[in-house]
Amino acid sequence: MRKVGIAASGLTEFSKNDSSIESLMLSSVKSLFEESRNLSQNDIDVVLTSTNDNQKYLANIMSELSGISPRVAHSVESLCNSGSNGIVSAYSYIASGLADVALIMGAEKTDNPGLVLNWDESRGQYKHPIYWASMFASAHMRRYGTTMEDIAYVGAKNHRYAIDNPFAYFKKMFSIEEIMKSKPLTDTLRLLDCSMPCDGSAAILLASEDSIKKFTDTPVWITGIGQKSISAGFTKNQELTSMESNIQSSSKAYKMAGKNASDIDVAELHDAFSICEIIELEDLGFAKKGLGASYVKNLYETNDREINPRGGLIGSGHPLGATGIAQTIEIFQQLQGNAKKRQVNGAQIGLVHNMSAAATSSTVLILES
Amino acid sequence: MRKVGIAASGLTEFSKNDSSIESLMLSSVKSLFEESRNLSQNDIDVVLTSTNDNQKYLANIMSELSGISPRVAHSVESLCNSGSNGIVSAYSYIASGLADVALIMGAEKTDNPGLVLNWDESRGQYKHPIYWASMFASAHMRRYGTTMEDIAYVGAKNHRYAIDNPFAYFKKMFSIEEIMKSKPLTDTLRLLDCSMPCDGSAAILLASEDSIKKFTDTPVWITGIGQKSISAGFTKNQELTSMESNIQSSSKAYKMAGKNASDIDVAELHDAFSICEIIELEDLGFAKKGLGASYVKNLYETNDREINPRGGLIGSGHPLGATGIAQTIEIFQQLQGNAKKRQVNGAQIGLVHNMSAAATSSTVLILES
Repeated sequence: MRKVGIAASGLTEFSKNDSSIESLMLSSVKSLFEESRNLSQNDIDVVLTSTNDNQKYLANIMSELSGISPRVAHSVESLCNSGSNGIVSAYSYIASGLADVALIMGAEKTDNPGLVLNWDESRGQYKHPIYWASMFASAHMRRYGTTMEDIAYVGAKNHRYAIDNPFAYFKKMFSIEEIMKSKPLTDTLRLLDCSMPCDGSAAILLASEDSIKKFTDTPVWITGIGQKSISAGFTKNQELTSMESNIQSSSKAYKMAGKNASDIDVAELHDAFSICEIIELEDLGFAKKGLGASYVKNLYETNDREINPRGGLIGSGHPLGATGIAQTIEIFQQLQGNAKKRQVNGAQIGLVHNMSAAATSSTVLILES
Repeated sequence: MRKVGIAASGLTEFSKNDSSIESLMLSSVKSLFEESRNLSQNDIDVVLTSTNDNQKYLANIMSELSGISPRVAHSVESLCNSGSNGIVSAYSYIASGLADVALIMGAEKTDNPGLVLNWDESRGQYKHPIYWASMFASAHMRRYGTTMEDIAYVGAKNHRYAIDNPFAYFKKMFSIEEIMKSKPLTDTLRLLDCSMPCDGSAAILLASEDSIKKFTDTPVWITGIGQKSISAGFTKNQELTSMESNIQSSSKAYKMAGKNASDIDVAELHDAFSICEIIELEDLGFAKKGLGASYVKNLYETNDREINPRGGLIGSGHPLGATGIAQTIEIFQQLQGNAKKRQVNGAQIGLVHNMSAAATSSTVLILES
């Protein structure tokens, strides 16, 4: 298998605005071209768009708008996990030798059609994602004694980190008390425990080992990939204190990279809701089962940026199709030593975790400088 | 690069019916499981859905409905070229070593949102695909003296062949005269020159060389792949008597397989409209430029099934996301010697051509038994 690396990236601010999906994508692609040394449109073999937007032929439209005539162009959709699916698909085109350079653009509008999981009759009337997150929170509280205050530490930590992310939706510090007193949406989750759907875009350039030298002196390599789809419906999660797709995808990614959780210097974990980060820390091996909350509390108190240094989805906002790409860009910048105020010192090995719909599917990537 | 082959396939009838997109897909997947020896759900690493349908998370929903928990699951969309994009993407997962076995399901409903190309302002009010096809027809007539009668031979041939395709939308022979006298839709194209949007589904199983033996004794190998996206908008086609994406994608596929047009025993060409088949025969090297029409007339008179033996899109119907997969299944069956009344004797090397939106993008596959 050919080695595949990340060469360049581009982001828009995550906010609420009136831009079209095409304008959002163009904006992150423009930044990517500005960042990358010597990149020309003719270098690009593959253009993938990752989004829940209903626009058809979007990868071809974006190619034309960007002045690119790629060989491969299509859209990739898997709800919140679309961005990392696009990245893994592009990886496989390059690793197989079918292509050398791939551009993946993800974007979403605030009112996108991926927000409500209407197909899942197992949820009854509880179609909004907060209901599954709330059930996970209740189960974790029952089994491990996790408290509302424990959960609030995730939001407090991630909101604090987002202040140093120029593209973040939120740029405001919140105390544990403020988070606990924010609007209650369910018995166990408050408004500030949730990520916010918003408008935003992220673009990333992947290239083969031979091609990448043209674009950067500091590539970051994708050395581990794990993906798993357990189901589409909520009820297939056997155990509400753990997310099976996370366990399987991370185990596969660690194995491929020859690494384990203790080797990871910096990680992006998909904190669609605060409880998710706690469970993911446990599922991915960062914390022992039941000790995810105290792991987060310790990060907060020591101001350690190891987990979700850009502020996670809770601080940065969650434009679905862009999220997995934005997470990967954060680890790319960390491993390049380009993360500015967010930099985790000496980070050399990183992890990205992106998932969909009650962790019915997830993707884990291991990146190395 | 690892060798990748086709192991099994499944189809539904192409018709107009009330089935949901999920039911259509399940139906072709059920046929695929019945055809394949020893295939179990646990064998499948990758599930891709190709469609223009707006249902989100469809690959994961279909996985759950089919009892599959794959590693990779997402939807692929590139209008009419979605099916072959799904196949090439699955190929790259297997060729790269990320996966061993991939299931691609394509389906479409008659009223799908991929039919009208609303984004293309270069078309003015002429958004329906028949207008670009009609401009190609007029240009070919002007430059090469092609006549309405010449064009009618494509429909007559493909409708005749569709009678032997149990899954075809049309099952009726039409004379040259009947086609020429069918309802005029533009100056140069009649109703029976057009493919018909319809409901239908097609599923195909790809596997690595090592894995494929479990499922079949007669695999068909994908030996050549070419793809090209010139643009999304109609006006980027420089020459209306030729389709640039066809030339580039076929040239790439021939080169990868070490073959040329004279080596091809049987081919599926994307005849969304009758004029397309004539131009494609020229662009892909089967006929000299300007002689596509006489090539078709000769096929019709000798009853030679070499081109579009299942009846093409014109005879079989055109459920967008299923079409590229159904075309590939036809060549798979031909090279296995399983095409029954449609069999081209001794076929060993085949070609699939699938395209989108005025040939702004296309895919060519070379298959070998």
